[in-house]
Amino acid sequence: MGAGADARVAVLASGEGTNLQALLDDPVVGPWICVVVSDHRDARALERARSAGVEAVFLDPGVSPDRDAYDRAIRAVLQERKIGAVALAGFMRILGPELVRPYEGRILNIHPALLPAFPGAHAVENALAWGAKVTGVTVHLVDEEMDHGPIVLQEAVPVHDDDDRESLETRIHETEHRLYRWAVRALVEGRVEVEGRRVRIEEAEGD
Amino acid sequence: MGAGADARVAVLASGEGTNLQALLDDPVVGPWICVVVSDHRDARALERARSAGVEAVFLDPGVSPDRDAYDRAIRAVLQERKIGAVALAGFMRILGPELVRPYEGRILNIHPALLPAFPGAHAVENALAWGAKVTGVTVHLVDEEMDHGPIVLQEAVPVHDDDDRESLETRIHETEHRLYRWAVRALVEGRVEVEGRRVRIEEAEGD
Repeated sequence: MGAGADARVAVLASGEGTNLQALLDDPVVGPWICVVVSDHRDARALERARSAGVEAVFLDPGVSPDRDAYDRAIRAVLQERKIGAVALAGFMRILGPELVRPYEGRILNIHPALLPAFPGAHAVENALAWGAKVTGVTVHLVDEEMDHGPIVLQEAVPVHDDDDRESLETRIHETEHRLYRWAVRALVEGRVEVEGRRVRIEEAEGD
Repeated sequence: MGAGADARVAVLASGEGTNLQALLDDPVVGPWICVVVSDHRDARALERARSAGVEAVFLDPGVSPDRDAYDRAIRAVLQERKIGAVALAGFMRILGPELVRPYEGRILNIHPALLPAFPGAHAVENALAWGAKVTGVTVHLVDEEMDHGPIVLQEAVPVHDDDDRESLETRIHETEHRLYRWAVRALVEGRVEVEGRRVRIEEAEGD
């Protein structure tokens, strides 16, 4: 199964953009990425886009009167570029109905824990502080609740006795980079089937 | 490291007692089990105890005026038998301070999910309904909050696309049976070190 009309991907990122970089570096997914949008003018993610020859767009939340207006500004960028799928990569804003509804089932997020455990912005620290022995990575479809939509992929990551935030985060990032390109490929290739909260991924041809 | 004065174990169980059976069948842990206590007269767990030649005690919650009184009744059974460690195996009551405080750090529980995900009595169904791709098993020390104390062991269990409750529960039970005897051994042998919420298990001699 090849990529159809959805093979135009936008990445939304607020910060460092390591997951963006993993997508850019993937030989299949990289060429699909048409635009990177950030809510931070100085986001390293925007530099990564430019270095890869991908359009980088800063949208200033400060000039939008409210969240809906900001979401509409993002939506306009996506629609002008005929974007079919969106990957959030450390985008630190909760998306509302103005963006989520028109792109229902086509926005992915990646989270550094096994949701519903450790939602929110401090998943790695929280897992360590809680004394979890297993944490992991979740890729999910985005709905209007934070860290909530149907789960596309999850993979466990062990917590070691001597882990600190940095060592655990490194291990989680490696898993994230592998899972996210796999999930984006499946979504763009139309292999993600959603039934309520249960998601099934069809195997790719040749898998 | 051998088992010291704590090598007298009580198991508290309300129902089927499959985790109790796994402990009884373990060549190291089985002989340590001195008594099985249940809040249900007809609990299969009590039959399993009798079949193994272990004392089986039914304590009727109906005759205790409140939870504290019931917890004191359990405590009396444990103290009379000089019990050093307690393993909950499907015991469907929340223990209060009358039992938890005198046995602090010496009561284990096993839960069929990766806590803090899917606490409560329907962990397997809830994981399936939520569309989790990974769930698992948690062994934790018991404190006065349900499914909350410091985590001793966790292991991930995959959820397959075609899983129903029965198939997933079977896979989780296999993991439970393996983890629980390991955790009880470590606790009784004094190899469980607790620091806040983080728990470290020293290796057994010969491991």
